[in-house]
Amino acid sequence: MREIFDAELTQLGEDLVAMAGRVHTAIQSAGQALLTADLALAESVIADDIAIDALNRDLDERCVMLLARQQPVATDLRVIISSLRIASSLERMGDLARHVAQTARRRYPDPAVVEPVRAIFETMDQAAVRVADRLVRLLTTRDLSIADSLERDDDLLDEAHAASFAAQLDGTWTGTPQQIVDVTLLARYYERFGDHGVSIAQRIRYLVTGEWVEDGPA
Amino acid sequence: MREIFDAELTQLGEDLVAMAGRVHTAIQSAGQALLTADLALAESVIADDIAIDALNRDLDERCVMLLARQQPVATDLRVIISSLRIASSLERMGDLARHVAQTARRRYPDPAVVEPVRAIFETMDQAAVRVADRLVRLLTTRDLSIADSLERDDDLLDEAHAASFAAQLDGTWTGTPQQIVDVTLLARYYERFGDHGVSIAQRIRYLVTGEWVEDGPA
Repeated sequence: MREIFDAELTQLGEDLVAMAGRVHTAIQSAGQALLTADLALAESVIADDIAIDALNRDLDERCVMLLARQQPVATDLRVIISSLRIASSLERMGDLARHVAQTARRRYPDPAVVEPVRAIFETMDQAAVRVADRLVRLLTTRDLSIADSLERDDDLLDEAHAASFAAQLDGTWTGTPQQIVDVTLLARYYERFGDHGVSIAQRIRYLVTGEWVEDGPA
Repeated sequence: MREIFDAELTQLGEDLVAMAGRVHTAIQSAGQALLTADLALAESVIADDIAIDALNRDLDERCVMLLARQQPVATDLRVIISSLRIASSLERMGDLARHVAQTARRRYPDPAVVEPVRAIFETMDQAAVRVADRLVRLLTTRDLSIADSLERDDDLLDEAHAASFAAQLDGTWTGTPQQIVDVTLLARYYERFGDHGVSIAQRIRYLVTGEWVEDGPA
């Protein structure tokens, strides 16, 4: 029995890595679609989000089934509950990537982000892709130094988020109301990538150390 | 043993109702602070969100403890897992109320929403307060007709969300970039109140009927 259970827990871990890999692709493609006004790529992110949602549902059902069948305690219980929550955060990151792609699609063939904020979104795109990449590696290796780096990327996202507002409000902005709406929402989506990434990193830190470090206000 | 467990499950249900009650107050006060530029009320929402976060953590810990100690199956397991998720959605609604209050505070003594979108935010405020009120009653009574009404309020929030964009983009808008940023984010917060409300209603529906009705894309 224990052997089967261990195999199921290992599978759960592998599925989270696979899900994080898909979210990484989604964020990378959404950013590229946004910055290069690539309609086909935007469409692919939107279509692929259905698969991420399905992975979440599947993982979710298996966690509940494991709880019912194995009645785990201590570490096993902690692993399953954490998996439930990590999957839910990854699913939400997939939704955010879809929102970015939908914005790119709505503005096509125009770019949704233009100067003077384009450079800010290049920074956010790179930081968000790094967050997703670090999540894959953190889920694979449980190396907590990766969690530290991820938290620094989240700080960068917060700074870029603030900079995107400053750029619109410094009196030199000449964009249209539509561009302000787009930039405001897009910057929020990118900021939320970081928040979800940090939340997942905290859960993995908890699994590794057994100590819970409090979430800051979101 | 079963008696103690039943008492604990009942307590869990009562705590969710209490938490929903606090979220209801937070949404109501945040909306009033926003529409009347009431600084003291905004401050109170921001301060009280700490209590909602604490309730969520407490409820969360008790759910995990119940899973470990009682090793529940079937309906009991479903109730505990659903409680975990409902608490997490309620906590997020509290965060959103805090974001609304923080926007009101940042603009004080000016109002954050002005014509021509003020009427739209009055509609959103009323719908969001109704959503929270219905959640309290749905959690108390498990009467699924309340879930239906809640879903209609969510539709209203989606429509108002779309209307807030239309008002800014119809070419007659004379607000500042700051006002566009505020309106864009505030409308998104209100739209998310509805999404979280529907997600909780779906979980309660599942608890009552045993049938899962799929979430639409968020």
